[in-house]
Amino acid sequence: MLVGRVVGTVVATQKEPSLEGLKFLLLKQLDVHGKETGASIVAADAVGAGLGDVVLYATGSSARQTRVTENRPCDGVAMAIVDTLEVNGQVTYDKAGDER
Amino acid sequence: MLVGRVVGTVVATQKEPSLEGLKFLLLKQLDVHGKETGASIVAADAVGAGLGDVVLYATGSSARQTRVTENRPCDGVAMAIVDTLEVNGQVTYDKAGDER
Amino acid sequence: MLVGRVVGTVVATQKEPSLEGLKFLLLKQLDVHGKETGASIVAADAVGAGLGDVVLYATGSSARQTRVTENRPCDGVAMAIVDTLEVNGQVTYDKAGDER
Amino acid sequence: MLVGRVVGTVVATQKEPSLEGLKFLLLKQLDVHGKETGASIVAADAVGAGLGDVVLYATGSSARQTRVTENRPCDGVAMAIVDTLEVNGQVTYDKAGDER
Amino acid sequence: MLVGRVVGTVVATQKEPSLEGLKFLLLKQLDVHGKETGASIVAADAVGAGLGDVVLYATGSSARQTRVTENRPCDGVAMAIVDTLEVNGQVTYDKAGDER
Repeated sequence: MLVGRVVGTVVATQKEPSLEGLKFLLLKQLDVHGKETGASIVAADAVGAGLGDVVLYATGSSARQTRVTENRPCDGVAMAIVDTLEVNGQVTYDKAGDER
Repeated sequence: MLVGRVVGTVVATQKEPSLEGLKFLLLKQLDVHGKETGASIVAADAVGAGLGDVVLYATGSSARQTRVTENRPCDGVAMAIVDTLEVNGQVTYDKAGDER
Repeated sequence: MLVGRVVGTVVATQKEPSLEGLKFLLLKQLDVHGKETGASIVAADAVGAGLGDVVLYATGSSARQTRVTENRPCDGVAMAIVDTLEVNGQVTYDKAGDER
Repeated sequence: MLVGRVVGTVVATQKEPSLEGLKFLLLKQLDVHGKETGASIVAADAVGAGLGDVVLYATGSSARQTRVTENRPCDGVAMAIVDTLEVNGQVTYDKAGDER
Repeated sequence: MLVGRVVGTVVATQKEPSLEGLKFLLLKQLDVHGKETGASIVAADAVGAGLGDVVLYATGSSARQTRVTENRPCDGVAMAIVDTLEVNGQVTYDKAGDER
């Protein structure tokens, strides 16, 4: 899995029928210190994430193993809202205070 | 998923039988601001996308989860035509006006 | 999928039994303009491609969806011989005349 | 598979139900000499790894082939604790003495 | 598939039960000319490869399609020992004489 911040959304009216009802989030990937790596991805939302949330996301076939993405042509899913990242005993990200 | 712009097509007469009937699009990947990242891919068309359209595409096994790509040796599919990309409350791409 | 040029072959006598009968092609990846990107891959041949041919290839589990690669430990397959690449209305590769 | 060092953990209370009970490790990827490559990943823990341990991890659908990750939306798993890395007859990492 | 040279081994005593009996090889990826690309991977050995051998390896779910890796959390497998690499009619690697 990877960690990313929700920075926006993608809206698409004309789409493959199996995509109906999915919400598409724009994520910027973060490193272990909570800083952006430069990479971004579009992920389906399986957890009710909002703008600014730091999420755990899965890619590839594993992204189809959630209730909302099962059997859909979805290769990225935000599936958990991160409370804390802790590296070598130091909290590098805390949802309560955001990027410490 | 990733976002890309349709820049062209690939024509191949001599091919694996299971590929018959698929239309192959050349896509240039875009970042969250609608700018090209330098990467490109060939995707099967599952949504009727045309030259210049910005599309949402899936890769890997997830690309075989649409009606047109099921059980085919296809690892990329354009499956939605993007109306808008919105980043931090700003619209960075709008199909109506194209790259704002 | 990606586009590549067949630049050679890999010969291996001592191998996993399920690989028997596959022909392994060395491919150099091409961009949408038909130029080499620097990346290369080994792909099984599902289409009878020859040295110099530009082919469409699939990677990952999708590479096992052809008749010759089914259920084999194969993660890359050349499955179509490209006739033309067309970008923004310009033909950037034509098999008839090769790299225009 | 790849080799990485456990540098921390990710805590997430609000998550997809199928993730319940998994422990998420922050890993920094190591090269064959035991040095960091700059890449990092979040992996589920299938082996009881602790901070500082060097582990073998799998990604993609293979990460769902362990007892703790089966059928879960998990694309990375730490599945073995490395005792030694040996390159050209030289031990480049030894758990007993750590980074020699 | 990709081509790599066996440069070492990984030993891990404490591991997921399904990994029992697999031998883990450290591979350095080679380009079509038989030169190292800088990338490395750990692959299960399905062919009896030894130190210095140049092998063909598969990654992802395809790596689970050999007899030794079936249903195991293995995303890389060395499955053939390369005799020759031939590029544009020139032999760039020959096991008999090694790196010509």
